[in-house]
Amino acid sequence: MTDAPAYPGQPLSEVLTPALIVDLDALDHNLARMARLAKEAGVRLRPHGKMHKSADLARLQMAHGAVGLCCQKVSEAEAFARAGVTDLLVTNEVRGAARIARLTALAATGAHVGVCVDDPANVPELSSAITAAGATLDVYVERDIGQGRCGVTSTADVVTLARAIDAAPGLSFAGLQAYHGNAQHLPTHAERSAAIDAALPLVAEAVSALRDICLPPPQVTGAGSGTFPAEAASGLYTELQCGSYAVLDVDYARLLDANDSRYDATWRHAVFVLTEVMSVTRPGLAVLDAGHKAHAIDSGLPVIADRPDLRVTGASDEHTTVDDPASTLAVGDRLRLIPGHCDPTFNLHDWIVACRGDTVAELWPVTARGCQW
Amino acid sequence: MTDAPAYPGQPLSEVLTPALIVDLDALDHNLARMARLAKEAGVRLRPHGKMHKSADLARLQMAHGAVGLCCQKVSEAEAFARAGVTDLLVTNEVRGAARIARLTALAATGAHVGVCVDDPANVPELSSAITAAGATLDVYVERDIGQGRCGVTSTADVVTLARAIDAAPGLSFAGLQAYHGNAQHLPTHAERSAAIDAALPLVAEAVSALRDICLPPPQVTGAGSGTFPAEAASGLYTELQCGSYAVLDVDYARLLDANDSRYDATWRHAVFVLTEVMSVTRPGLAVLDAGHKAHAIDSGLPVIADRPDLRVTGASDEHTTVDDPASTLAVGDRLRLIPGHCDPTFNLHDWIVACRGDTVAELWPVTARGCQW
Repeated sequence: MTDAPAYPGQPLSEVLTPALIVDLDALDHNLARMARLAKEAGVRLRPHGKMHKSADLARLQMAHGAVGLCCQKVSEAEAFARAGVTDLLVTNEVRGAARIARLTALAATGAHVGVCVDDPANVPELSSAITAAGATLDVYVERDIGQGRCGVTSTADVVTLARAIDAAPGLSFAGLQAYHGNAQHLPTHAERSAAIDAALPLVAEAVSALRDICLPPPQVTGAGSGTFPAEAASGLYTELQCGSYAVLDVDYARLLDANDSRYDATWRHAVFVLTEVMSVTRPGLAVLDAGHKAHAIDSGLPVIADRPDLRVTGASDEHTTVDDPASTLAVGDRLRLIPGHCDPTFNLHDWIVACRGDTVAELWPVTARGCQW
Repeated sequence: MTDAPAYPGQPLSEVLTPALIVDLDALDHNLARMARLAKEAGVRLRPHGKMHKSADLARLQMAHGAVGLCCQKVSEAEAFARAGVTDLLVTNEVRGAARIARLTALAATGAHVGVCVDDPANVPELSSAITAAGATLDVYVERDIGQGRCGVTSTADVVTLARAIDAAPGLSFAGLQAYHGNAQHLPTHAERSAAIDAALPLVAEAVSALRDICLPPPQVTGAGSGTFPAEAASGLYTELQCGSYAVLDVDYARLLDANDSRYDATWRHAVFVLTEVMSVTRPGLAVLDAGHKAHAIDSGLPVIADRPDLRVTGASDEHTTVDDPASTLAVGDRLRLIPGHCDPTFNLHDWIVACRGDTVAELWPVTARGCQW
């Protein structure tokens, strides 16, 4: 782990760049807003920890009423549990004896652990391991509702799996995992709505079939920051898994625009990569000290906060180039980049510099950074 | 730092996935080959450590005759020096009092440290700091030769900077940094050759002007894995900075193909992301447990080694989808992904699993992973 790039009380102007900064006022706003929206809709919130990978940020979410955290990897769940966040749903399948042994060992420590299945062969694997560990595991059936990735593809398979889970020693049938990842990033509200509207009948059919066999799903969990109002209003979902709402990024800001009444723009950017101009050798072009090892570009280039006159033109490993038509920038000038995609950006950093205004308030380790398996 | 995903002597089949693996036989082949090519051309090799960020890999390169290592950040140089690799050229400008203080403190520990400048204002900053530290610093003038990023853009500026460096207490004028990053990735040999052919007169003019003022550059350093034969044969360059040659990636493999006589295909893939099939719920589609938090996609998707029948169709944060037309894959099957881009892939991992055949030989920490400033 690298040295911390800052210390509490330090002026932001002195923090070594590039650094990942979180604006605590904006974060508080977003956390409070989502907590209110979930409460108004009568659904639980279990934010996705794969986004920020930070136990400190997770604790703030739980203080705002989140019931626990989602994560995507067993090693992430271990890292969160070590840091004191112990109600964890792995929204993913866990296969292989070694990984399953770590998952069940975690449950045996007293953590409340959930996991998804999409294959009948996985049920006895989980059951034997958790029984040997002397603990219990919440198990969700993952139903694919349009993502086309993991998850079973028919109601019959949902029923088969739920029955197998219910009958298996040590496993508790906890409900349905139904997340439509692709829908989150469709460009317009109408397209996102249509995708969820097409998915809801699949969820309704699964819920109905489970009720028919006297296994009503205790939870129906899913949804992301791009579509959650639809799931929350569906009368089917009981739990939201949104992650990006906490900090926003370029991609979500583009989607959740002011013309979109249900997905309005009162979320605030809370995560930035603080960067410094390091070279200006020709008019109109500035080079920043942060490249795509500091801000993830898988969903596009970053945008420079508060400077509509500047435009990012490219990013290489350690540099970002900026079109500065009026040649306003000089070496040492500092800018805040809004990352194209928040999740993999957090994963590039060891530390989150949490700020109030222009002062460093806290240093948070990125608890589950780099957790691969 | 995460736990190591493997241990020496372990069969590769038991390593927790996803994991970054390096094939030591292929690596040895590449290191020996580049050492021979550099020796035949009569130039020094100072491989770029930003690619692998590994002190263990750097030590192998030095055992093959490399004179030292390049890095891109002061914090990388610190990490390498702590791990015993102490001849370090920062192929980048270092600005700001805090960063410069760390660079000069490193030189004061006895490390042999070089750095680039492209701004006269940087010279007295470096000089004051290194003098205060009681040490000396090698300083290179960076000449832009087509990358359009850092570096001065005229021979006159080269001369001005060289004179300033030469006159500044504590600084030793070490030569020219002249790296054409864009040229490395041009699709054909003809285009790459043309780009370097266009750049060489700029280098020649700078060298000649420096000789005229009795400041002949001790080193002319640059070149990457895509173009180095041209720089090596130029009679101008004295040192190569190639990085990717050590392991190759999808992008370089595409460039350095067998139709390209000077850039031939006898490099071998030495880095892979070992991954496991985690879900197969529909015919023809398999889901892998490694997404773009395990293999960088800034230069394109990965390719599956030894399986031309399979095609990667997409990558999200934690998953990669594979088109498997004959539905050959089952949960638990293992594949090796050749990363689209090696540099940022190493930076996603804490550990390199170094293998001989199917057995783990050594575990190497990614020494400078996440070094941001």
